[in-house]
Amino acid sequence: MRNDDAGKTILVTGASSGIGALSVRAPALAGHTVYAGIRQMAPRNATAVADLVRHGTGHRVDVHAVEPDVTSQDSADGATDRIVTERSRLDVVVHNAGHIVLGAAEAFAAEQFADLYDVDVLGTERVSRAALPKVREQGSGLLVWIGGPSTRGGCPPFPAPCFAAKAAMDALAVSWAAEVLPFGIGTAIAVPGAFTTGTNHLADAGTPPTSTVRKPTTGVTNPSWAAWASVWPRSSLRTPM
Amino acid sequence: MRNDDAGKTILVTGASSGIGALSVRAPALAGHTVYAGIRQMAPRNATAVADLVRHGTGHRVDVHAVEPDVTSQDSADGATDRIVTERSRLDVVVHNAGHIVLGAAEAFAAEQFADLYDVDVLGTERVSRAALPKVREQGSGLLVWIGGPSTRGGCPPFPAPCFAAKAAMDALAVSWAAEVLPFGIGTAIAVPGAFTTGTNHLADAGTPPTSTVRKPTTGVTNPSWAAWASVWPRSSLRTPM
Repeated sequence: MRNDDAGKTILVTGASSGIGALSVRAPALAGHTVYAGIRQMAPRNATAVADLVRHGTGHRVDVHAVEPDVTSQDSADGATDRIVTERSRLDVVVHNAGHIVLGAAEAFAAEQFADLYDVDVLGTERVSRAALPKVREQGSGLLVWIGGPSTRGGCPPFPAPCFAAKAAMDALAVSWAAEVLPFGIGTAIAVPGAFTTGTNHLADAGTPPTSTVRKPTTGVTNPSWAAWASVWPRSSLRTPM
Repeated sequence: MRNDDAGKTILVTGASSGIGALSVRAPALAGHTVYAGIRQMAPRNATAVADLVRHGTGHRVDVHAVEPDVTSQDSADGATDRIVTERSRLDVVVHNAGHIVLGAAEAFAAEQFADLYDVDVLGTERVSRAALPKVREQGSGLLVWIGGPSTRGGCPPFPAPCFAAKAAMDALAVSWAAEVLPFGIGTAIAVPGAFTTGTNHLADAGTPPTSTVRKPTTGVTNPSWAAWASVWPRSSLRTPM
């Protein structure tokens, strides 16, 4: 039997699919109250919300959809404010929201790196800032960042913007760790392996615009690979690593 | 005696002071042609430009000031175009331009992280993109990134935004390394120790705006420390790490 008084109140961002959706369901089944951050509930993620409601009803567990846009401090503040109003506390934040892009480093405009950083790194900063005043007041809590399988760069095909963002997120998380520990707040970086099914993450991956491919080639349809193929020295190909 | 034919053509960004200025002078004395990237030559960095000219005249070495703003792709393109027009080549790029900020992670608005990322990470992306078509055509060249003494976060006092940016830059550099090696282009990350004299870097360091300090305190004048002091649990202080 569930015990609401003993249960923690948890916020998971990016919870429409994949690791985020799983990170909502498992703690809910264990008796905790979980708020699933699902951006653009209607119409884009209506199915994800319906699945969440069905999960809650079917298993008689306490799950709720919230709609924080991690690219907006006001939106992040609003989501945590709602949780604190409804539950009087916020124990755990799971920073899972993220986006990916794939393509040659040279093919991306700097602005595309910035957009990715805005979601993957600044998104965690905004939600942490929104949650901290309440968590600090409680004197206990846990912040979890979902990291990438590699943050050290260097592994083609073409994850440069993603790895740069995840490396930044990791470093930021470690800085936060030192700064919140005196308040009784724990931290963790969870690093899943490559996670390719049950998620919209890869299907939604961005690519460099063809306008940034300086030497377009023919016969390669995927924009990422086209970007790479356009600059790769075919006539003198050597092993890249 | 200098031998211009044997000399390399080098671009150093952020060369008005510190490591950047030294990275111009040493290779110039060794007989290379060095373009010193000095933002806002007049009036802000007029002294730095005068010093550079004096160094060139006094030592009869080949140094030039260029004015790339690494926050603009057009400006970065213009600087490398000028170098290639004047020298018909560009052998080495030293990514040194950077900014720092100091303060508690929670005190910074996400936009301040974004501004730092724009200079420290996207600046290298823009200059690399500007340089690559020429360097690739040559079939040889070297890209050097000047890293920070720590990119792993976690070391107060309060470098969270800087470490997040430098970690991202390192990861980006490693991705670039794999992608340009097949073109005969070498790469390196140079990591100086803490470098506190002969540079404007620390004097120009940014801080969180007081508006972001949610619980202002009195008696602490440095905004960074004020931000920290305002949230630190004085009554139950524990060792942070």
